[in-house]
Amino acid sequence: MSEHTYKIVELAGSSTQGSDEAVRNAIARAAKTLRNLDWFEVVETRGHLVNGKIAHWQVKLKLGFRMED
Amino acid sequence: MSEHTYKIVELAGSSTQGSDEAVRNAIARAAKTLRNLDWFEVVETRGHLVNGKIAHWQVKLKLGFRMED
Amino acid sequence: MSEHTYKIVELAGSSTQGSDEAVRNAIARAAKTLRNLDWFEVVETRGHLVNGKIAHWQVKLKLGFRMED
Amino acid sequence: MSEHTYKIVELAGSSTQGSDEAVRNAIARAAKTLRNLDWFEVVETRGHLVNGKIAHWQVKLKLGFRMED
Amino acid sequence: MSEHTYKIVELAGSSTQGSDEAVRNAIARAAKTLRNLDWFEVVETRGHLVNGKIAHWQVKLKLGFRMED
Amino acid sequence: MSEHTYKIVELAGSSTQGSDEAVRNAIARAAKTLRNLDWFEVVETRGHLVNGKIAHWQVKLKLGFRMED
Amino acid sequence: MSEHTYKIVELAGSSTQGSDEAVRNAIARAAKTLRNLDWFEVVETRGHLVNGKIAHWQVKLKLGFRMED
Amino acid sequence: MSEHTYKIVELAGSSTQGSDEAVRNAIARAAKTLRNLDWFEVVETRGHLVNGKIAHWQVKLKLGFRMED
Amino acid sequence: MSEHTYKIVELAGSSTQGSDEAVRNAIARAAKTLRNLDWFEVVETRGHLVNGKIAHWQVKLKLGFRMED
Amino acid sequence: MSEHTYKIVELAGSSTQGSDEAVRNAIARAAKTLRNLDWFEVVETRGHLVNGKIAHWQVKLKLGFRMED
Amino acid sequence: MSEHTYKIVELAGSSTQGSDEAVRNAIARAAKTLRNLDWFEVVETRGHLVNGKIAHWQVKLKLGFRMED
Amino acid sequence: MSEHTYKIVELAGSSTQGSDEAVRNAIARAAKTLRNLDWFEVVETRGHLVNGKIAHWQVKLKLGFRMED
Repeated sequence: MSEHTYKIVELAGSSTQGSDEAVRNAIARAAKTLRNLDWFEVVETRGHLVNGKIAHWQVKLKLGFRMED
Repeated sequence: MSEHTYKIVELAGSSTQGSDEAVRNAIARAAKTLRNLDWFEVVETRGHLVNGKIAHWQVKLKLGFRMED
Repeated sequence: MSEHTYKIVELAGSSTQGSDEAVRNAIARAAKTLRNLDWFEVVETRGHLVNGKIAHWQVKLKLGFRMED
Repeated sequence: MSEHTYKIVELAGSSTQGSDEAVRNAIARAAKTLRNLDWFEVVETRGHLVNGKIAHWQVKLKLGFRMED
Repeated sequence: MSEHTYKIVELAGSSTQGSDEAVRNAIARAAKTLRNLDWFEVVETRGHLVNGKIAHWQVKLKLGFRMED
Repeated sequence: MSEHTYKIVELAGSSTQGSDEAVRNAIARAAKTLRNLDWFEVVETRGHLVNGKIAHWQVKLKLGFRMED
Repeated sequence: MSEHTYKIVELAGSSTQGSDEAVRNAIARAAKTLRNLDWFEVVETRGHLVNGKIAHWQVKLKLGFRMED
Repeated sequence: MSEHTYKIVELAGSSTQGSDEAVRNAIARAAKTLRNLDWFEVVETRGHLVNGKIAHWQVKLKLGFRMED
Repeated sequence: MSEHTYKIVELAGSSTQGSDEAVRNAIARAAKTLRNLDWFEVVETRGHLVNGKIAHWQVKLKLGFRMED
Repeated sequence: MSEHTYKIVELAGSSTQGSDEAVRNAIARAAKTLRNLDWFEVVETRGHLVNGKIAHWQVKLKLGFRMED
Repeated sequence: MSEHTYKIVELAGSSTQGSDEAVRNAIARAAKTLRNLDWFEVVETRGHLVNGKIAHWQVKLKLGFRMED
Repeated sequence: MSEHTYKIVELAGSSTQGSDEAVRNAIARAAKTLRNLDWFEVVETRGHLVNGKIAHWQVKLKLGFRMED
């Protein structure tokens, strides 16, 4: 962060592969519509279980991006 | 949550009736403009007092909805 | 807050002057595009250091504004 | 809150009816001795169980009231 | 709590009616298999949304019960 | 704190000037009626917005003072 | 807690002997002026050091007492 | 913890003597029915007051024990 | 979660491979004795170090499963 | 933070002037002995009171600095 | 704390005797190498169990000491 | 932890590969200068974004190591 103002949005990404991949998926989706993405923070890691196995990893994260002046 | 990405927004609803009604009011307002609402979480319950009685219950909540792909 | 629903957004403002000024800068930026701003809460105060001095104060805050009915 | 100073006290109300009623009971008791009550915040919701049923809902709350100048 | 040892279990109850009813449902289910239930504490209140309305209130709670000596 | 017992009260001060001034205002008000004030801790910093500007900074703080023996 | 309203105050007790004794000292001081004391909760344990040894244990606690109807 | 899986249970022990003794009492009770106890963590320290004195110290703790393979 | 009651247990899994694998190991162990596993949440990630390297990743998680009616 | 490792230390600075100045004083002291200071985060704001006025503002902060490779 | 800067370090002490003794042991060890120790705060209390009994109490604490100017 | 005193330091590691690798990098750096490393705990997971992708994963962790007697 320099002299600008940043907006922070909260997303939840999911993946069948693992926790890091759930983060990457959420960021990839956000990058389709948001510019100037600057940082993320993991808020919560959880998942959905089916038949005693992890069906989806689900990670909540906050994303900060610089607002246009 | 399945394989999609979800966005989470924070709202504060109010009601003269009670805490659950304040949650319902915020969700009803959100449903006017957001599709694919999936879950909510209560973040804070408070209220405004007038003449020693509760004038409004005020409940902050987070709302998760599925983003279009 | 009266009988309306409020939306809460999270911003990070910055300033070379101090922590209060970083809050004011974020609110000034938000006021360009959001109407009916009602309250703010400071979430985190931090900053960036260059050559052993504070280059920017950075303050995360939440902003509540009344949604149009 | 305007330009005044407010004092915040912590109470625990109870009710056999439900959580909202426990809040109302605590506020009604406070209003007997405190003037200028302005807001409350719920801090904790719990209860006492007898024979597998809720005997009392117990809600801790903070109450803010304006101090006389 | 007197001179005994208590065990604390965590449950999540649900209801289509409201948050208090979700608490009562979880306690009713627990009372089928646990004796000497003594207190509960609400840990989290959330819910599932379908078509822009609350389909189920979901409340996590902790339940304390006295262990047999 | 030495060998005495201290009482801790919670206040919310306000100021049109800034966050530190809101702390000073609350302490000045408390000092009118409490003796032996010893320390304070900031609990929350927020404010009220009017026309896109900060109308009042509002700071919650805890105040510790030594009880007479 | 039964059907009454309880007030909760925060104190900090101290002792040269240990943490439990600091709790007992604060309660003994409170019992001089408050009736119907019902429960306490430890909020923080800390202490003051002099010459590399503990001069005073200092324990913050909350005290609940039943309000007269 | 080595390569095994551990289960964590939550208990509340009590004692008329002090906070450490309440921990020991809860562990002694647990050890009657659980094997392979490995660690504990204190979660909360509180107590019940009668006639202005501590009748029981009550300590909530988590207990970890190794699950049989 | 639908209209059922869920029980939540806390486990700590371990792995020499990484944090996700520690989660999977704990779930695999739980699935041997618990049916209807529905979700998990990561509570804490830590590990044991030997000779300056990670010997075991250790992850605490909560597991929710539907109780039989 | 780029590809390096950072160390984080905790300090408490003080000032008779205000909370921002207490932060600056702690950083100035740290800069005498630590190189490559990169960021700070405010952890706690408190102060010491004498005769009903603030004698010192005291701010705890964390300081991150890049470790030499 | 007066006008100086303080550094805060985190330690974990242990004792076979009890929680207070674990604090004293950590402080005694710290006092061998650190001067001007001023205060401590307990961060976490836990312990290691062997054969169903407490083998060691383990207490994490923060220690503040005045930095030389 | 056995009968010794442990010191706990806070680091932030980074990696272009993933969150676990950022932990390993920080530990590898620490092991160059600290002996008797015993455990770590993850405190925060975040990262820096460039062009809509993760440039660096950044993980804050605490490291405990046994102090020489």
